[in-house]
Amino acid sequence: MQALPSELPKIAADILNRIRNKRPRVHCITNAVAQTFSANVLLAAGAIPSMTIAPKEIAGFVARADALLVNLGTFDTERQKAAVKAIAVARKNKTPWVLDPVFIDRSKPRATFAKTLVAKRPTVVRLNAAEFSALTGADAKALARYAKSRRTVVGLTGETDFVHDGKRLVTIANGDPMMARVTAMGCAGAAFVGACLAVEPDAWTATAAALTVFGVAGEMAGARSRGPGSFAMEIVDALYNLDPTAIVEKAKVS
Amino acid sequence: MQALPSELPKIAADILNRIRNKRPRVHCITNAVAQTFSANVLLAAGAIPSMTIAPKEIAGFVARADALLVNLGTFDTERQKAAVKAIAVARKNKTPWVLDPVFIDRSKPRATFAKTLVAKRPTVVRLNAAEFSALTGADAKALARYAKSRRTVVGLTGETDFVHDGKRLVTIANGDPMMARVTAMGCAGAAFVGACLAVEPDAWTATAAALTVFGVAGEMAGARSRGPGSFAMEIVDALYNLDPTAIVEKAKVS
Amino acid sequence: MQALPSELPKIAADILNRIRNKRPRVHCITNAVAQTFSANVLLAAGAIPSMTIAPKEIAGFVARADALLVNLGTFDTERQKAAVKAIAVARKNKTPWVLDPVFIDRSKPRATFAKTLVAKRPTVVRLNAAEFSALTGADAKALARYAKSRRTVVGLTGETDFVHDGKRLVTIANGDPMMARVTAMGCAGAAFVGACLAVEPDAWTATAAALTVFGVAGEMAGARSRGPGSFAMEIVDALYNLDPTAIVEKAKVS
Repeated sequence: MQALPSELPKIAADILNRIRNKRPRVHCITNAVAQTFSANVLLAAGAIPSMTIAPKEIAGFVARADALLVNLGTFDTERQKAAVKAIAVARKNKTPWVLDPVFIDRSKPRATFAKTLVAKRPTVVRLNAAEFSALTGADAKALARYAKSRRTVVGLTGETDFVHDGKRLVTIANGDPMMARVTAMGCAGAAFVGACLAVEPDAWTATAAALTVFGVAGEMAGARSRGPGSFAMEIVDALYNLDPTAIVEKAKVS
Repeated sequence: MQALPSELPKIAADILNRIRNKRPRVHCITNAVAQTFSANVLLAAGAIPSMTIAPKEIAGFVARADALLVNLGTFDTERQKAAVKAIAVARKNKTPWVLDPVFIDRSKPRATFAKTLVAKRPTVVRLNAAEFSALTGADAKALARYAKSRRTVVGLTGETDFVHDGKRLVTIANGDPMMARVTAMGCAGAAFVGACLAVEPDAWTATAAALTVFGVAGEMAGARSRGPGSFAMEIVDALYNLDPTAIVEKAKVS
Repeated sequence: MQALPSELPKIAADILNRIRNKRPRVHCITNAVAQTFSANVLLAAGAIPSMTIAPKEIAGFVARADALLVNLGTFDTERQKAAVKAIAVARKNKTPWVLDPVFIDRSKPRATFAKTLVAKRPTVVRLNAAEFSALTGADAKALARYAKSRRTVVGLTGETDFVHDGKRLVTIANGDPMMARVTAMGCAGAAFVGACLAVEPDAWTATAAALTVFGVAGEMAGARSRGPGSFAMEIVDALYNLDPTAIVEKAKVS
């Protein structure tokens, strides 16, 4: 359970194998721009996505899911209500859930809502530095303290990713610059964190594994693509074909 | 009109030609994850998609359409209302319509709604075995009886597809395993059933043709792709380029 | 500011460079089918898209945007309200905005709503001949008179594009037939007009530049693709990689 950073690449490879074998269900409340790409990323990795936000059925879908993603990228009333319902079911069933507070640095009402969700103790919060600052009022140096005080794992993504659970820190330097040129890449990455949480009980390990595997797939896509259009296609193929030994070879984890 | 299974490959090739020449309009009430891909599949085949669900204009769009698709994959209140309105117009105008009761095996309220729509006599119901069971309470052996009692054509899709109208059965063994790894592939296939219904009055023939052509396009995409990302792109190209003689050669219809 | 048609190719190349350097924010109220592709086109060109339509935050997003797109392709109540709010903010801040009245030739309520938006003086209206006729009751010959009377730039797109501001006309003959076979291609083109308006104060020049650059990218995609699936990917790569000198060489502007 308590992996060291040096052991993470091997564990990440194993987590990908577990997803391929167990085919966990990941329910995603995510924004309209990200839905199709996120579903395709999950399917390519081996997970089974579902995406409904309908009030009548959200509880049933979450109850049967192995992990939940709550992404705030489309901040409409229906999705807010769906998020609250879904989180209640996930908490009751001890289903792991990821909060992805997209663009809260650009919208105060969204940041306020995100804070109410953090109070419900997400298993993982995935965000970038600007979003972290909007959520916490502090800069990235406060990562450890924030993770500890909120009893959550924080995955702070950027050129280098940092994953902290209040005690343990791991930094991941995988990825490709083209990932910032395809819409919903971060949202799909957060959905993939959900898939890893579905098969790995230690949330810090699962988050680090997700960001490592997704970053390695991004590097492979970068090597094959000529621009962001082909990159979006290639990263889906790369995730599908990813050889676990390549994860161990290419992981830049410390 | 009353084609034999052995004649279907040639008729399927002809139906694709008719779509390319007549460019029928297919109005799709479909889920958010499937909209873009379904529109691109229809355009590649030669049909003209429209996708609005707005209450004020749905009747006008359906009135001008040559076929209608009702897909339940996003079960929100707005789409349910749009579906009821759209079906009323289609029935009045004798416009053929396809019901695709996605994931009703995962959601009771959705299954209940699907049953009320089947009572309105869809031209075709397309579903997989789990959805068929949720709709009928029976297993796939009840296919003939269900199609007959509901006076509809049922397209039961899976590794092998079965199309029954209560009297005639055809089985289609085309397709590629990668089709299960791309989101909305079945939804887009159901939209393509709509395009075939728009140019072929015999619904059993149109459904069999649609599943054959889509399956052959899938096989061609499978031969060119390296994973689900490239597969999603290649099947659109394959549909666009599909040589009618290849349909006759590759069809596995009996 | 008052460019001649012969100078436009060079200016178009410069405008693309400005987008790449300044990375303007373009807020898009656009239809569900077009959101992902439009976001990817903007990112490939160098702009930063945002897409929210939530009532609580639309004003804040538009206030921080450098241009606004209002596309009527999904005519739901929420998007109509968002459009009215967004336009009020854009007008107050003198932020340029594009109106794309998609499919108003197919829906009377949509055409009526489009007329109320034209009365708010969009910087640019982009539409095809059928939509122009639904908006104005006249045929394309009335282009100059309509642009002048409404004090707007009209980008009339088709096999050949015409851009008129009431005084100046430019015709652009770039593009590829495959652009009509990919859903949301025109919507994404209108979003790209927004990106050009964000960096070029003369709206006639910005619109002509956008249609030229997008058409040249389409020609390059056409040369590399085998069908509409690969075309959709290739035009994103082409925009990303587009060499400004190629714009000057390939522009068909008069």
